[in-house]
Formats: sequence, C-alpha cells, structure tokens
Amino acid sequence: MSEVKRKGQAAKLASYSLVSISTEEKNEALALISEQLIIDQMSILTENQKDLEEGKGRGLSEAVLDRIMLNEKRIQDMAHAINLLIELKDPIGETIETIEKENGLFIKKSRVPIGVIGMIYEARPNVTIDAATLALKTGNAVVLRGSSSAKFSNMALVHSIHNALAKSKVPVDAVQLIEDTRRETAKELFQLNEYLDVLIPRGGKNLIETVVRESTVPVIETGAGNCHMYIDETADQSMAENIVLNAKLQRPSVCNAIEKIIIHEKWFEKHGKQLVEKLQENSVDIYGDETVTHEFKSISAASEEDWAIEYLGLTVAIKIVSTLYEAIQHINTYGTKHSEAIITSNEEHAAIFLNNVDAAAVYHNASTRFTDGFEFGYGAEIGISTQKLHARGPMGLHALTSSKFMIYGNGQVRS
Amino acid sequence: MSEVKRKGQAAKLASYSLVSISTEEKNEALALISEQLIIDQMSILTENQKDLEEGKGRGLSEAVLDRIMLNEKRIQDMAHAINLLIELKDPIGETIETIEKENGLFIKKSRVPIGVIGMIYEARPNVTIDAATLALKTGNAVVLRGSSSAKFSNMALVHSIHNALAKSKVPVDAVQLIEDTRRETAKELFQLNEYLDVLIPRGGKNLIETVVRESTVPVIETGAGNCHMYIDETADQSMAENIVLNAKLQRPSVCNAIEKIIIHEKWFEKHGKQLVEKLQENSVDIYGDETVTHEFKSISAASEEDWAIEYLGLTVAIKIVSTLYEAIQHINTYGTKHSEAIITSNEEHAAIFLNNVDAAAVYHNASTRFTDGFEFGYGAEIGISTQKLHARGPMGLHALTSSKFMIYGNGQVRS
Repeated sequence: MSEVKRKGQAAKLASYSLVSISTEEKNEALALISEQLIIDQMSILTENQKDLEEGKGRGLSEAVLDRIMLNEKRIQDMAHAINLLIELKDPIGETIETIEKENGLFIKKSRVPIGVIGMIYEARPNVTIDAATLALKTGNAVVLRGSSSAKFSNMALVHSIHNALAKSKVPVDAVQLIEDTRRETAKELFQLNEYLDVLIPRGGKNLIETVVRESTVPVIETGAGNCHMYIDETADQSMAENIVLNAKLQRPSVCNAIEKIIIHEKWFEKHGKQLVEKLQENSVDIYGDETVTHEFKSISAASEEDWAIEYLGLTVAIKIVSTLYEAIQHINTYGTKHSEAIITSNEEHAAIFLNNVDAAAVYHNASTRFTDGFEFGYGAEIGISTQKLHARGPMGLHALTSSKFMIYGNGQVRS
Repeated sequence: MSEVKRKGQAAKLASYSLVSISTEEKNEALALISEQLIIDQMSILTENQKDLEEGKGRGLSEAVLDRIMLNEKRIQDMAHAINLLIELKDPIGETIETIEKENGLFIKKSRVPIGVIGMIYEARPNVTIDAATLALKTGNAVVLRGSSSAKFSNMALVHSIHNALAKSKVPVDAVQLIEDTRRETAKELFQLNEYLDVLIPRGGKNLIETVVRESTVPVIETGAGNCHMYIDETADQSMAENIVLNAKLQRPSVCNAIEKIIIHEKWFEKHGKQLVEKLQENSVDIYGDETVTHEFKSISAASEEDWAIEYLGLTVAIKIVSTLYEAIQHINTYGTKHSEAIITSNEEHAAIFLNNVDAAAVYHNASTRFTDGFEFGYGAEIGISTQKLHARGPMGLHALTSSKFMIYGNGQVRS
C-alpha cells in the first residue's frame, strides 16, 4: 500500500474515534500541542534550517525563503494561536434544526465533523500547524501534504504534534503528513475519495486550478482575488481616496487587496487627477483604459489581460465607466467572486451594487481588506472560499463541519 | 460557439437578472408554468409518444418506458406540484447572521441564489419540470441535460416553460435545455466552470460515478443507498419485524430501502427463524453469512460483493454479529453514507450507533424509508445528498442557495 493510501486509511479510522471525543479532550490535546511546540523548538528550528539551506541552494527567492523561515518568535506565535483556538466555542454537537412529525418521529439535525480533511499547500510551515489544529478542534482527522521546500520543517512540526497527541485522548493517527512530496503523491490525493471527505488547496492560482481540475474528491476552492473598488459619481472624495489607498497599499500581496479601480466618469473628471497623484506618490504602477491614458500621459494602456489578472503587488488598473451598470457588468465579467466594493453617497446605487455583484463579500463605503476570518470575528480562518457551495467567504470553524440527521422513533414505519 | 457553451452563457446572464426578481414575480412565473403545462398537454403528449415509440423500437424495458411515459394524470400531477411549490417560503434574502464590529462596520450574511445549476439526469421527463421549477423558486438559472430517450418530451416541456416565462418577469433564458444528447455534450457540461456553479446528477450509480470522476464543476453527489438495519440484542421482536418489512418491502426500488440486515447473535438465536420466514413469505431472496447459511439451508452464501451492492429489488443479505461495534464497523466499511438504522431497547447502544455510524440519516427504532424531503417536511426535494459538503441528506430549497456577506461601512479602513 502506498504512503498516501496507508495514511489516508489511518486518518479515516482515526476520524471514526474522533466523533466520540469530548470538547474538553480536544482542547487538552490542543494545549499539549501548544506546549510541545515550545518544548521542541530547538529541533524544529534545526530542521527548518535544512529547508532554508536547501532552498538557498536551489535559488529560491527571498520572499519564498521568508515564508519558509521559522524562528523562536514565529513558533511562539503558533503556540499562542493554538491557545486562542482553545478558547473558541466548539461547533460540534450543536443542534441545527429539529422537526417533530405527527407520527411521533423526532428528527434532529446536528453539527458533526466532516471526517477527513485533505490539505494541500505551498511552502508555509505555519499552515501545517494551522490546518492540523483547526481540524482537531472540529473533530476532524487531517492528511497534510505540504511543499517539498518545507519538507524538513513540516516533518518536525508533525513529529511534535504526534508527541503531544500521544499524551492525549486524541489518536495520533488523526494527523497525517505525506512525507513524499513528489508530484505523484498530490495526484494520488486528488483521487483518494475512499478516505478523504474534502480537499482544500491553499496557495497560488496554479495550485488551486490544478486541484479543481484534477481532483475527484470534493474541493473547497480558496483564494484568488481580482478585487475591484468602484467609485460612484457621488462618492465622497476623501473617503474614496482613503479607502482606495488602504485597500491597495495596506498589504498589496494578499487576496483581499484591490487590483482594479472603476471610476464613474463624472467623479473622474473632478477628482481623478488627485487620486492618480496619490497612487503614484505611493509608488503604485497604474494601467488605464483609453480615457485614463488620454488624460495622463504617464499611464500605460491596460491590455485585455490586465482586467483579469491578480497583480498581488504595487500595480493597479483603472477603468472609467458612464453608469453603475457598466461597473457591475465589468466586475461580474472579470472578477474572481472574492471581495468587491462601491463607494457612493447614493443608497440606492449601493443596494443595487451589493445585490447584483456576484462575490463572496460586497462592501459599501469600506475597504475590501476586511474580508478575513479574524476581522469578521470568527477567531480562526482556514481560508477564504470563492466558490458558492458549502462555504463562501472567510471560513471559520463552521466551514470544517457537516451535518447529520438523527431520527428517534418508537417503531414508526412509512405508509 | 457550441450549444452547451452558448446556453451556459445565456443561463449565466439570466442568473444575474434573477437576483433582482421578487418572490411574487417568481411565484407568478411558476403559476404561469403550471397553467401552461395544462394548456400544452396535447402537444406534450404527442412528443412523449415519439420518445415511447423510439424507445420501443430500441427495445427499452417496460420499467424504463414507464418512467418515460406521460399521460394527462402525470401532467396534472406536475402542475399540482408546482402549485404546492409556490406555497413554500422563499429562502432567498433571509438573514443568516449579522456581525457588528466596534469600528462601526455592519456585516450581514444573506441567503442568495447559487447562480446557475446544471442538472444531468436519466430518462424521467418529470425531472425536467422538477429541476426547472425548484431552481426558479430559489432564483437560480438552470441548464438541463436529460437523456436521449426522453428527448422529445423534454423539448416539449421546456418549450412550455419558455411560453410561460415569456409572459412573466423571469427571463426565458433562465431555463436552458441541451437538446444535443450525445455523450460529448455531457462531457462539455462537466468542464463548464465558467458558467455553471454546481452540477447535480440524478440517476443510477454509473451516471453519478461518471459525473464525480469527470466533472471539474463542483458536484452534489446524490443517490446510492446501501442501507442497513441493525437489530440489537434487546430489540423488540415485533417492532424489529415491522420495521424490517417496511424498510425492505414498502418500495424496494428506492435508495432509502434497506439492502442489508445485521443481527445480534442472541436476537438471531431467539427470533431469527421467524424473521427469515416472514421475509421469504414476502418473496424476498436472502443471502447470508456463514452463521445464517449454516442455520438455513434455503439461504445462499453472500459473497464479498453482496455486502457492498445496492440490490434495489426484493433481495437482502443478512449478517450476524456478536457486538454492536462489529455492526458499526461493518456499516462504516460497506455503507454508502445514506440511511442506517438500529432497533434496540438499549438507549446507550442507540446513542453509540447514532454517533458512530457515518451516514446522512441515522435512525433509532424507525424505518429508513423516512429519508425524504417531503417526509422531513421540506415540501420539496432536489435529491438526497450522500456527501458531506454543502448539503447532507434530503435537499430542500435551502440546498439550492448560497450565502453572501454584505458589509456596510462609512469609510472604514483596515489598520
């Protein structure tokens, strides 16, 4: 039996015992993991060093190396995040719905774990801890498959988790790491319907597209954000400037930062120059449609491709429209259904935009940067779903649960 | 542009206008469809006749021809079902959750349509009407792809729907039928991620497996039910017999009928003979494990394959166990996660069974035949989900909805 099959099966078996483990027992296990990470920090850092050296040898960029890098502070942050997770309410066992039938049948819809969650992710060892602890909090087993560039770090972290679980009521098998990081093992996970209930990719566009295309296991698509800010005719000038600068600059490399600005022609006539100057003062590269490039010789023309791309950096493209509907249509054509915003003083326009734009999160007069499980108050985030089934938008603990109908009778039969 | 792409795109565009259509307007459109089916019944029956003749020519079985066959009564039943659907509460626009942040942001999670639903199904023209009207009730556009054996009937039914929609506020394009029923068009639908938000197969095991394997569009898996009834040591004899006979015989061809009986050895010693006789009196073919075949020479041995199969007819396999845990383990190994039941007077055993058996619906002292959207009181059913994401068990109108975060601010930016 291959490593993937063997570990998938072990996780499945563990998931069956996890349904009988209490909230207290799960929290005890999490506390043990938090402590163990601190106890094991020297060995974790030693293993992390191997990844970093191998990465340097292979010429990985500074940005990627920074994502892989662990230090005492980062390990302490992980341990601290687990302590916060312990405080969160356990969603498992909640009654979602009850139905009493005339024949005396009592139907209860309860919240239960999903079962086994497959996580496939890129070179961020913190996802190993994140995914494992969020899964355990919600009574799920997890099969982790990280990147080869963080192989030694991931093995050390999972070793630490296993040490902790061995002292707890949670079976050690509940957390599995696929150590063989060749492409073949990812492909095997894509088809592991027998043991995986869901597969969640976390990483760049290519990873997510591959998983969606190749996986027969149900996938929760997370990630890509080609987010737009639409500045309507009646938008307050300073509010619009503030929000645009925040949504573009506060952290340009993340999925909820804006990539495009759509501006009503009348607002653009009055305030376009100042907005463009502010963006340029902040080193933002600007592409524009014909109206914009005609007005500003310093701005290059946006290509068709620009409207669809997620720059993830200090770049933005600006398009001028003559109606709200043109803005909505553009967003529904090129958006990735992540986060979209309108700035306007016209309440009716706001309502039309919020209703008609097809995205997980739609904003009136606020920055798209708020699309985040912690900002929404969920206390945890497994990712941001851009699909419409199961979970949409920031996914907290509830997104890692399923439901089950429990039906209590005293001999009822169907007639 | 191919028929599938063209119609997928038209449905997507229609879905954008559907979000602005009120409950009243949707119900008016449904009422018009209900009327139109009666108005058009002669032409629908004429077209249905063509399918039946073609089917006879191709040697389709009586059972399949009966599924394809329409008559005045069946058309009236369709029209009546639409009138009942109109009465159901519209889930769209419901507030699921509200969050007020200290910075003044107000976050509202609302229930919204999914967008475009792809339905792929076998030779039952009633699914055409069912799927189209459930989709419209929940503000979704739908792309229908039925079987070639019901081609003329489906075209006539959709023609009737279009006639009705033309008089309503709902765009005619909201309901699309793929008329080309060659295998290639199904394959094209599987990859139509640009326009479809979900694909729901309705039909036999092969259809469902093909869709799960080949579709990159998110799928809701429905259907297969290898359901078990476990008779525990302390089960009341007459209750057990009643429930088993109901769950096996009331409608043997459906997914929530039982296919396997697991019996505790002590109960089997005392009451096994009578149960077997009652099943045999009702013409049920029985396969058994070693204990059963040793006891009853008239019973053939069950093969490994028997434990996994869904007979969908007057056949059952019986297995004897010596503990509750053995029963649970067998069910979790061979079950299809549909409906599973325990008959017992031991409350603790019931709780362990209901918690540990991994299925959409788990029963204590009742027939598995109740797993049904109408029996659960949902007033509608698009299918029974056997997967764990999005919807599990009978899917009513809520299963055809998604959610959307609407965030209201007055200039908030993230710090």
